[in-house]
Amino acid sequence: MSKKLTSRSENYSEWYNELVVKADLAENSGVRGCMVIKPYGYAIWEKMKDELDKQFKETGHQNAYFPIFVPKHMFEAEEKNAEGFAKEAAIVTHYRLKNDPDKPGKLMVDPNAKLEEELIVRPTSEAIIWSTYKKWIQSYRDLPIKINQWANVVRWEMRTRLFLRTAEFLWQEGHTAHATKQEAIAETEQMLHVYAKFSEEHLAVPVLRGRKTDSERFAGAEDTLCIEALMQDGKALQAGTSHFLGQNFAEAFDVKFATKEGKQELVWGTSWGVSTRLMGALIMAHSDDAGLVLPPKLAPIHVVIVPIYRDDEGLAKVMEVAKRIEQELKAEGVTVKLDDDDNRKPGWKFAEYEMKGVPLRIAIGPRDVENNVVELARRDIQEKSSVSQDGIAKHISSLLDEIQEAIYTKALNYRDEHITEVNSYEEFKSVLEEKGGFISAHWDGTEETEKRIKDETKATIRCILLDNKKEEGKCIVTGNPSSERVIFAKAY
Amino acid sequence: MSKKLTSRSENYSEWYNELVVKADLAENSGVRGCMVIKPYGYAIWEKMKDELDKQFKETGHQNAYFPIFVPKHMFEAEEKNAEGFAKEAAIVTHYRLKNDPDKPGKLMVDPNAKLEEELIVRPTSEAIIWSTYKKWIQSYRDLPIKINQWANVVRWEMRTRLFLRTAEFLWQEGHTAHATKQEAIAETEQMLHVYAKFSEEHLAVPVLRGRKTDSERFAGAEDTLCIEALMQDGKALQAGTSHFLGQNFAEAFDVKFATKEGKQELVWGTSWGVSTRLMGALIMAHSDDAGLVLPPKLAPIHVVIVPIYRDDEGLAKVMEVAKRIEQELKAEGVTVKLDDDDNRKPGWKFAEYEMKGVPLRIAIGPRDVENNVVELARRDIQEKSSVSQDGIAKHISSLLDEIQEAIYTKALNYRDEHITEVNSYEEFKSVLEEKGGFISAHWDGTEETEKRIKDETKATIRCILLDNKKEEGKCIVTGNPSSERVIFAKAY
Repeated sequence: MSKKLTSRSENYSEWYNELVVKADLAENSGVRGCMVIKPYGYAIWEKMKDELDKQFKETGHQNAYFPIFVPKHMFEAEEKNAEGFAKEAAIVTHYRLKNDPDKPGKLMVDPNAKLEEELIVRPTSEAIIWSTYKKWIQSYRDLPIKINQWANVVRWEMRTRLFLRTAEFLWQEGHTAHATKQEAIAETEQMLHVYAKFSEEHLAVPVLRGRKTDSERFAGAEDTLCIEALMQDGKALQAGTSHFLGQNFAEAFDVKFATKEGKQELVWGTSWGVSTRLMGALIMAHSDDAGLVLPPKLAPIHVVIVPIYRDDEGLAKVMEVAKRIEQELKAEGVTVKLDDDDNRKPGWKFAEYEMKGVPLRIAIGPRDVENNVVELARRDIQEKSSVSQDGIAKHISSLLDEIQEAIYTKALNYRDEHITEVNSYEEFKSVLEEKGGFISAHWDGTEETEKRIKDETKATIRCILLDNKKEEGKCIVTGNPSSERVIFAKAY
Repeated sequence: MSKKLTSRSENYSEWYNELVVKADLAENSGVRGCMVIKPYGYAIWEKMKDELDKQFKETGHQNAYFPIFVPKHMFEAEEKNAEGFAKEAAIVTHYRLKNDPDKPGKLMVDPNAKLEEELIVRPTSEAIIWSTYKKWIQSYRDLPIKINQWANVVRWEMRTRLFLRTAEFLWQEGHTAHATKQEAIAETEQMLHVYAKFSEEHLAVPVLRGRKTDSERFAGAEDTLCIEALMQDGKALQAGTSHFLGQNFAEAFDVKFATKEGKQELVWGTSWGVSTRLMGALIMAHSDDAGLVLPPKLAPIHVVIVPIYRDDEGLAKVMEVAKRIEQELKAEGVTVKLDDDDNRKPGWKFAEYEMKGVPLRIAIGPRDVENNVVELARRDIQEKSSVSQDGIAKHISSLLDEIQEAIYTKALNYRDEHITEVNSYEEFKSVLEEKGGFISAHWDGTEETEKRIKDETKATIRCILLDNKKEEGKCIVTGNPSSERVIFAKAY
């Protein structure tokens, strides 16, 4: 397989698909819509997971694990939620295979092993978790419950794309229960900010913090907050959501608690999640035509060292320096790979680590050894320089911070340049087609207008900013009065 | 719910069931055979996971993720493996629910959304992984592949027990591919030793390292190595297995590689796994009638501090010392919980943390403050002593090491006292009934005899020790010649 990518300008979508595979992140499996996350991709996901997990624990959450199956009667208990997921549910109906009498060596579903009640493979776990919370919650003393789960979920999507939309994906889902509405809302907001901060500080992806409209809200929630990121093709990507569930699930599963005063009240809930979709955001926000660009905080390897030599004598000299630098970098907490594989040429290695987005590459040749320097190449801006071997570990350590910052700033500038205020539907359409990005426009607040815009332009309301300023205006479509702008975009 | 447990001598099985629930480790869910792992139980599992993950990485493995579903044709490709799991397979047959026209608000499986090919929820992932390895492996340069996966798996067991046997459980499964038989065997052995060391050094559970007989071997393997632990009721528990797969899966999925010399050869494989079953082993090996006993290395909380006071003045004095000691312990790397909950009496807290197996409890009352001491209670031997506040953090830190060691030694002594050599079937039966534990006996090597012993006594051959000494003898049942003893036990 050629390592060269289709360029972004040629075909952005193709570029993404190729990059995911060629950078060894993931690939399609033999199971429709399900992906294999390869070791290099999984290592990035693990770094995301570790950091998020730490932040969840710091904000008082504990991990737990709930069953993957949801019995049908439980699934349908909260009707809006059930309706939202019914059309894409993988359903277990039998619990045994038997030998196929007509085909030796083959198996068939045993018709005698039909389940009395079908089981849904969880598309999300509110139903199973709230049916459990009912047992755990009697009094205000049992609240709040703040639990997170790392799990796989299944949504039978018809059109799938690696990381962005897959039938099975990995995620975390927080599910909390509270005595008061106020506390549940504060939790919903807190977790959105955890996500936003994580996205900006670790993925180096700036996000808009906002609220979904009624039609884009999570099924079963009263309010859905979201973070929205912008990809290089001008399309938005919802990177995380945090839902205020009101008392919907408490009502569906009859979860009440005795207040201090002895009254019985319904419990308030939240749920919030991010998934392997974040991998898609990470890839699309920063990468270029040479491959992946990774922010150092999520890069499985920070620095690759490539020795350059003609003969054994050259090799020995170069390796001595390479190994010393490797040790110095490790001591500084930098993750380093010294690639002395004899079967591959330096040029091949350069292309390989560029494709994989390793933030820094050190090349050392015999002349570098003589001059006490190395060649240092930055992946993000693709610049090379000759730097002294003295104090190189400290230099690289601070350079990694600089790269993290630079990648973020670049994405931020791009994003900020792509928030366009428009004041007419014509302008809206032309910006959408020619420039893309987020469009800030007045909207009359009706689902009807929202739907018309979506049908005509494929743009949806991504969010209403949390810190939105009030501004009198007229809806770009109907001319009806509007009190604030909302953010539109085409989206993944 | 009363916090008092049924005693072990009264009803060991009931004691276990109650303990798992009362120590807040897990509970049955509303889904048949599936458990909810509660935060305290999950925190212990996370500690196991983190340590194992570290050891897998140190031995050169990488994590990845493969689909939860296995299409039927893939599932049945390796026939022995398929046969082994067919009878307990959860099967997805449909991908959509629709509104039930006869029951408003209810859903039904949409008969128009039947899958063309059924999907098996993975009971283990050899099939899906080897079908992927086929794409990844062309030449000797692509080998070895050493991958681990943390995942949930489903086996539709008819009789389930929390942690020990559940329809869904969490585990890790390593799957490696090698160019030579020798290398694959070395990997199989290496991972067994990783498991054994982990069990002994972290769970504080001594294990026998052995090999399964043909009839107890993993379906699809050529050789199954195992670690076997002994529970306090004299029954064995298989705590981990490592399989040499030979070329079975390579053959089933046609996975070949080009050797250095350009020949096409089948790849050699291994797989190995441990699961949430380890939680069962941990609980049953050490706990007592007052509740859980946890080795410090796996305890989510090392030390609980309980302030004892009559009035506000007393509280203030006691809390000052409690907080100082809390800080000192944290600085020493000890996980500490200061429980100043006003709603619970000290006696309730003592019982609670005993039930949860917190290794050390510090109680501080006003008189302790005056005397510059605290009351320190060890959970494992249930002994209290008065110790000086000076240097307490260092004292506790080394005491935790001592406890880890003591718990292991106690389990080791118990285990060693319960390996009994017998030389007749009569003796075998009487030891099995009266003493329990592992029984070392001669066996003629036939499946027939093995089955007869199992049918008549419920004991199975747990393993043939890896370092077994050769010894001429006669089978205790048939009197036929035998060249070595094997290890029998009743098992979980």
